[in-house]
Amino acid sequence: MKILILGADGYLGWSTTLGLSQDNHKLILVDNYSKREYMKKLKRKLLNNNLRVETKLKYLKSKISFHNIDCSDIKKLSNIIKKHKPDAIIHFAELPSAPFSMLNHHYSWETLKNNLQSTFNLLECTKDLVPDSHIIKLGTMGEYGTPNIDIEEGWLNIKHNNRSDKFLYPRQGSSLYHTSKIMDTDLIWFYTRIHQLRCTDLMQGPVYGIYPDLENKDDRLVPSFAYDDIFGTVLNRFIVQAIAKEPLTIYGSGNQIRGYINVIDTIKCIKIALENIPQKGELKIYNQFTEQFSVLELAKLVKNSLKHINVEVEVKKITNPRIEKEKHYYNAKHSNLRRLGLSPLKLNKNIIIEMAQYCQKFSHNIDRDIIQPRVNWK
Amino acid sequence: MKILILGADGYLGWSTTLGLSQDNHKLILVDNYSKREYMKKLKRKLLNNNLRVETKLKYLKSKISFHNIDCSDIKKLSNIIKKHKPDAIIHFAELPSAPFSMLNHHYSWETLKNNLQSTFNLLECTKDLVPDSHIIKLGTMGEYGTPNIDIEEGWLNIKHNNRSDKFLYPRQGSSLYHTSKIMDTDLIWFYTRIHQLRCTDLMQGPVYGIYPDLENKDDRLVPSFAYDDIFGTVLNRFIVQAIAKEPLTIYGSGNQIRGYINVIDTIKCIKIALENIPQKGELKIYNQFTEQFSVLELAKLVKNSLKHINVEVEVKKITNPRIEKEKHYYNAKHSNLRRLGLSPLKLNKNIIIEMAQYCQKFSHNIDRDIIQPRVNWK
Repeated sequence: MKILILGADGYLGWSTTLGLSQDNHKLILVDNYSKREYMKKLKRKLLNNNLRVETKLKYLKSKISFHNIDCSDIKKLSNIIKKHKPDAIIHFAELPSAPFSMLNHHYSWETLKNNLQSTFNLLECTKDLVPDSHIIKLGTMGEYGTPNIDIEEGWLNIKHNNRSDKFLYPRQGSSLYHTSKIMDTDLIWFYTRIHQLRCTDLMQGPVYGIYPDLENKDDRLVPSFAYDDIFGTVLNRFIVQAIAKEPLTIYGSGNQIRGYINVIDTIKCIKIALENIPQKGELKIYNQFTEQFSVLELAKLVKNSLKHINVEVEVKKITNPRIEKEKHYYNAKHSNLRRLGLSPLKLNKNIIIEMAQYCQKFSHNIDRDIIQPRVNWK
Repeated sequence: MKILILGADGYLGWSTTLGLSQDNHKLILVDNYSKREYMKKLKRKLLNNNLRVETKLKYLKSKISFHNIDCSDIKKLSNIIKKHKPDAIIHFAELPSAPFSMLNHHYSWETLKNNLQSTFNLLECTKDLVPDSHIIKLGTMGEYGTPNIDIEEGWLNIKHNNRSDKFLYPRQGSSLYHTSKIMDTDLIWFYTRIHQLRCTDLMQGPVYGIYPDLENKDDRLVPSFAYDDIFGTVLNRFIVQAIAKEPLTIYGSGNQIRGYINVIDTIKCIKIALENIPQKGELKIYNQFTEQFSVLELAKLVKNSLKHINVEVEVKKITNPRIEKEKHYYNAKHSNLRRLGLSPLKLNKNIIIEMAQYCQKFSHNIDRDIIQPRVNWK
């Protein structure tokens, strides 16, 4: 299959590249390194020596092309699509951070504009140039928020006054980033039904993990690993805090429940999505996570696991910088990907220890000043 | 009350200005005349000699200030808000046309970007500068689409697996313009609940009418009257077609049902909204229309009414340039504004005749080449 990956430099974009490079695909990568630029501007650093895509590609045997292109430039994006005519396009080219989107007016608008425009350009190019191509977009479980009813997979059948219809499951996020992803969904569903495109939306929970591959653990090929307050995801941040001998910081009560997934499973899910091509005019939506935890449970799991390698961990509740419900109902369905063959890798002591051991190798890189949350919703 | 009106040059913006100028309010108007620029570029013309805001204000006795400002420029918008500290802000500063948004890539993105950015800037400025101010935003009934269940007023209580919650009523529009308004709603609801703003969303149906005031029919003060394929609303277009001795063009079967409203009632609704200030963190949503018609019924009403002034009307079905359901269930609630005192002006023969007589005065201005739909969704 010819597969175009937008946002290939990111944590998920590069992991997906690695995962798909083992199969018999032709991969075309696109990134403009804008996240690296933003991190530099905001003085946030990665833990590891994440090489640029061009360099990492030299270590991979497969023939993969890379284009340094901004997806919000439609001419450049359409040239790539015209040239390669991909069978599938995987869209990670979005600014992925809730705190970034709540930092100030400038970054809020950057998030809204970049995410909407890259998705819009992709949909326009697909409609005009490769209408049969399969778009796989990364959504987020955060779009659903924390409703008081069960969270279904993307859609909800509603019965009202003795009539019924099927709708997108109601969405309300708790940051402008999440709101931008809801807008993405509005847009992708519009194009899918009006222009008869084939789309898949992967509603992913917070990801964790270092190596995207269980067998091949080549440090030169590891994806970016962020642990800072803006770009780090929660479990990755906890492990770096533990290694830095800092307390794991719980925002508020820690009763916030989310669905989590190992980056290795992300790749499995994307492979499943690639194999299950939607009909024309069909938007398939999967909830892409494997287990639910509260933040507090997650912290305790880290604490108990790291005892085995003699790392003492303190857990500390701090004032929640976000505006979100801390005590809420949460029951999110996630059987679609299981039914299509996903065999999940559950979080356990060994995974946490392996992550911590990787972080220890880079402990000299840890900057204590960028871990505590400094972006406040209020 | 100190009221800021964004988009004051438009059909509704100017009508609202006229309506509110009679009451004891201090009005501050903003527009950048961008719709006039787009109309010029696209070679669409208004029927009437719509004077610019500055000129029209000379004919009004009230002290009203006007600022030629683009609301997508946050610095300029925030300066106005900082200076005047309005009690209420009425937001019409959006590109309002479905065909415009489907014309080509450029105008699609203009619509998405302008509408999202003006709303975003308004919300940011309100949060930072006048968090107690009441935002009244014009939404559209088109956001709901044509679901197979009753359309409630903005919200829906959903019972699912023996639990329940209240959500925004599901929305799916049939153009990028409508999708941009759905994104507006996502955004306004985010800011309302996270930053405890006070907002009202008026989900308006297609508007018709010439004079925004039953008593004061001063031709110099009439708002813009568009009849072209891109900016004209359906009933206004039909009447111009009739006067031009062109057939009334029905898109497809004409069974598409919508809720309509007279521009005189629009002003009444806005006055009601102004008086009913939401609580902090509350988003009030009203469905703002007074009666439902199918397009075919509307055409027949025009035909039968104009017989009385000896205007012969032909009704002609043409291939639908849009992608939309032509046969569908439609039952939209609209009792909230009635309950708060709206006494509607129903469409009748006399209203249609008065509109036609106004159009006859300007029949020399009618350009037959801009009436037929030239923007195709496919």
